[in-house]
Amino acid sequence: MTEREMPRKPVLIVGSIGLDTIETPFGVVQEVLGGAASYSSTAASFFSGVRLVGVVGDDFPAEHVTFFKDRNVDLAGLQCLPGPTFRWNGYYEYDMNQAHTLATHLNVFESFQPQLPTEYRDSPYVFLANIDPELQLSVLEQVNDPKFVVADTMNFWINGKRDQVLEVIKHVHAVTINDAEARQLCETTSLVVAGRKLLEMGPRVVVIKKGEHGAVMFTDNDYFVAPSFPLEEVRDPTGAGDTFAGGMTGYLAFTDDISEENLRKAVVYGSVLASYTVEEFSLNRLARLEPGEILLRYSEMRRITAFAE
Amino acid sequence: MTEREMPRKPVLIVGSIGLDTIETPFGVVQEVLGGAASYSSTAASFFSGVRLVGVVGDDFPAEHVTFFKDRNVDLAGLQCLPGPTFRWNGYYEYDMNQAHTLATHLNVFESFQPQLPTEYRDSPYVFLANIDPELQLSVLEQVNDPKFVVADTMNFWINGKRDQVLEVIKHVHAVTINDAEARQLCETTSLVVAGRKLLEMGPRVVVIKKGEHGAVMFTDNDYFVAPSFPLEEVRDPTGAGDTFAGGMTGYLAFTDDISEENLRKAVVYGSVLASYTVEEFSLNRLARLEPGEILLRYSEMRRITAFAE
Repeated sequence: MTEREMPRKPVLIVGSIGLDTIETPFGVVQEVLGGAASYSSTAASFFSGVRLVGVVGDDFPAEHVTFFKDRNVDLAGLQCLPGPTFRWNGYYEYDMNQAHTLATHLNVFESFQPQLPTEYRDSPYVFLANIDPELQLSVLEQVNDPKFVVADTMNFWINGKRDQVLEVIKHVHAVTINDAEARQLCETTSLVVAGRKLLEMGPRVVVIKKGEHGAVMFTDNDYFVAPSFPLEEVRDPTGAGDTFAGGMTGYLAFTDDISEENLRKAVVYGSVLASYTVEEFSLNRLARLEPGEILLRYSEMRRITAFAE
Repeated sequence: MTEREMPRKPVLIVGSIGLDTIETPFGVVQEVLGGAASYSSTAASFFSGVRLVGVVGDDFPAEHVTFFKDRNVDLAGLQCLPGPTFRWNGYYEYDMNQAHTLATHLNVFESFQPQLPTEYRDSPYVFLANIDPELQLSVLEQVNDPKFVVADTMNFWINGKRDQVLEVIKHVHAVTINDAEARQLCETTSLVVAGRKLLEMGPRVVVIKKGEHGAVMFTDNDYFVAPSFPLEEVRDPTGAGDTFAGGMTGYLAFTDDISEENLRKAVVYGSVLASYTVEEFSLNRLARLEPGEILLRYSEMRRITAFAE
């Protein structure tokens, strides 16, 4: 195999795959493709190969399987169990920064035990998307000395399984978390204090996601702030954070470079991908996103943040 | 007079000067120097001469007059009327982005009619700080063809004198407004839409202040986003927005350059000054701020926002 034919460094992604019913001020969609792993895998797939670990029920539409396959997402780690697929039902009011959950049905996730195919165990880049922290830990135990592991979590697990969330944070290289959840987990109103506290828990990189206000990254000796791309309309914020983290990890895998400078670029690429996700419901916008559009918005991000000495 | 001795372009500032009683999670202060014109004049004075137009009562402490004089703030336009000085009494809870007003006593402001000293009428740079929009309009009528006028406002006037606020906006070159107030005035949740709508009302520059999330600037063909400087602790957010706008206008006057590139620098200098204001109560931090500290944080702002192509 020539170098040209070598697959790019793949990202192993574990997380929820589900069917979402969502209402926003711009409309309602029912049982559309959703879940943290769906958004993050699709985002990462713009940069790198993806190995998806997750579970769906026997009602999972074949078209979604085709969608992932067409994007070069390896589904050897995707289990299909008898019973219904994971469902999430939520809505947003005019403040699109705040998702309100109406119902979460774990369904097949309740009995899910991730089993990594042998070839997955040597994945150098891993993204533990939002999912039960015990499942994140189980995946972490099955991979052999990965180069860079990113983990995400949410308030549902911080409330219900705080100790396990802290255990995950302790064993990964990077954490992505949204601002309200960082404040909650660290019991402080200051995001700067929260970022530093999270670093002390183990990871060398902490990215706090602030929705329309962008993201901030804390590393041992540095701090970086990236805005969100300015949009006139956000139609559906679902999956923005997952897209961000998946895009970020995918870019790191693609470049195989975890220097401070490259981490900053990865954060901006993550923001750019998230800005496309929220333009439409579900994965509709990402499904037809062109690589050129990513580069265009990245370059716009440089333009709108630049100022002279 | 040699060029070296020429005074730098002065900024004319009109706005409230008052005595504040403030409670934050970090403490309580009573009857301290406050008001939009106090913060903005002090901020501008780091860059340019300031001509202050406002009113105080006969109970206004002489030490505050000395404070302004020591900072090279021209007080020929400051009236002293019989009766008590303007008072504001407010508090902040753990969310320091939101000020809660307990009491506002306009006092001498109720009968205040700004009268510009003759030499003030040719001020090239003007900042109409937060105050009754009718007083802002009165000052605007008394200046001769200024080069650049910046106006600020707040929800109190948007609720009570919306038409006059819109009249001010129509006749100035730049508007600074906070995010909640921009959303309220433009009846939209999208800050991008609000920024564009405000531009359509007349000004060529609109800066939306987002507190801990920084500021965004809209110009006809451009958009710029500046973060706030990352602070572990914000002890008292009062006056941050006034400091920002005063610092911004002062920098523009100092450089006498209203190009897009220089406007961006002015926004960042405004953010830097505001980051110092909120470190302590009242004007305590600005009172001992050194020019070198401003340059240091400006350079930090470049470092924390930079990312490669």
